[in-house]
Amino acid sequence: MQAWINGQPSDTIALTDRGLAYGDGLFETIKVRNGRAILLERHLQRLQLGCQRLAIPLDLPLLRQELDAYLQQLDVGVCKLILTRGVGQRGYALPEPCMPQRILQSASLPQWPVAHRESGIELYSCQLRLAEQPILAGLKHLNRLEQVLARAEWSDPAFAEGLLLDQQLRVVDGVFSNIFIVKNQQLITADLSRCGVAGVMRAELLARADAAGIAVAVTDISLEQLLQADEVFTCNSLYGIWPVRSYLTQRWPVGQLTRKLQQLIKDLVD
Amino acid sequence: MQAWINGQPSDTIALTDRGLAYGDGLFETIKVRNGRAILLERHLQRLQLGCQRLAIPLDLPLLRQELDAYLQQLDVGVCKLILTRGVGQRGYALPEPCMPQRILQSASLPQWPVAHRESGIELYSCQLRLAEQPILAGLKHLNRLEQVLARAEWSDPAFAEGLLLDQQLRVVDGVFSNIFIVKNQQLITADLSRCGVAGVMRAELLARADAAGIAVAVTDISLEQLLQADEVFTCNSLYGIWPVRSYLTQRWPVGQLTRKLQQLIKDLVD
Repeated sequence: MQAWINGQPSDTIALTDRGLAYGDGLFETIKVRNGRAILLERHLQRLQLGCQRLAIPLDLPLLRQELDAYLQQLDVGVCKLILTRGVGQRGYALPEPCMPQRILQSASLPQWPVAHRESGIELYSCQLRLAEQPILAGLKHLNRLEQVLARAEWSDPAFAEGLLLDQQLRVVDGVFSNIFIVKNQQLITADLSRCGVAGVMRAELLARADAAGIAVAVTDISLEQLLQADEVFTCNSLYGIWPVRSYLTQRWPVGQLTRKLQQLIKDLVD
Repeated sequence: MQAWINGQPSDTIALTDRGLAYGDGLFETIKVRNGRAILLERHLQRLQLGCQRLAIPLDLPLLRQELDAYLQQLDVGVCKLILTRGVGQRGYALPEPCMPQRILQSASLPQWPVAHRESGIELYSCQLRLAEQPILAGLKHLNRLEQVLARAEWSDPAFAEGLLLDQQLRVVDGVFSNIFIVKNQQLITADLSRCGVAGVMRAELLARADAAGIAVAVTDISLEQLLQADEVFTCNSLYGIWPVRSYLTQRWPVGQLTRKLQQLIKDLVD
């Protein structure tokens, strides 16, 4: 279905928008079923956090209203929400007044092989090392050249996702996923306070695992720890959980805790 | 004057353009006088380097042709050239085929106080520390949230520019300028292989200073070295050279070498 800007149908945006000029904005990629957004509150929480850090004013009630109307028409698929700081004069200084643009776009749900979920994926080892920028870390902002360059490193479809390390070779996240490891029945995911995108499915998994009595930890993960993990999986809000069956020379079977977590989020994925 | 996309007048760009989605592109801000671009070859060299690093195909002859025609109509002002990777499908993978978009926009020449050039500026000390990403360092790409956030740190017009350090507190560049120090008659500017934007005026100054027999060095600059410098100045392609007269508690007179360099680039500035 056609995109909307600020509630109005549109396929284009002003060339003077700072979203284009500087990547000055945020986005969310939202799964939609029966006209409703999956994990909506977590998406909006992350967006709000981003708006605070970037000092972009957000009219949340208005955005909710537009999203509701858009998703009812979309019914099923993926809704990409982009919030830019809006049109600006020349130069980096914040525009006055600031008129953020609320963009809603749609796409059909990506069709990944069922085998990814069932038998697991091969994880590519990206050469690019993520830069550390605490003020932007965790946000899903529009400055995504690192992900573009990392994704361009491989074209072999045998690899469903690529792993990104930081410059100290700590495990951060996938190009479009978060990563978890399991060690001695503990579920561990990377601390994303220096770099990486804090996915909504990651947050939901941490909450549901904790509620289910599974020990969880958010902490630095060395490459060594990843290679010595009992189980490894990736997650995002569209596909749920993909067990990782290989990375570099390491191999893993699909683990029991991974299977249990797939069950725990079944309502969000099917 | 109205903007062009790929040689055609347009004020808008597709919402599906990756320039908006990911900041997937490059830009140049070009000074124009008498329908001609100042430092054009340096701008195009940097653009080409960016295209190589980002794997964006560039039809340089076509771009030159469009630029020539646009600048003749513009006559005088600033031409902002944006090159995006063009429209993409969902996801980070490079689009096939790739249809880069060549955007030309215009603005009038910014009117900075003459005192900036004559008496020097106060340099703000930005808190934001630039992230280190060698693959993007030096390029003028569209991922500019760091500059947006750094520029938002101050609103006092007493500060004409802000200084950016990296996370090891090395001097990198200004928010929209490069920085030089002079020590014992040597002209020194920061090595930008980890972060920062390698300005065309910086490159031109290095070349002209060298040709004039001035000792030049491109190397790491510690905050200590900056504070103990004999002279400090900033530069960019629009305003030329601004002597720095204060940074934190340090004060400098406008130095002799700074004055000499202002003379050396007079033809590019007036």
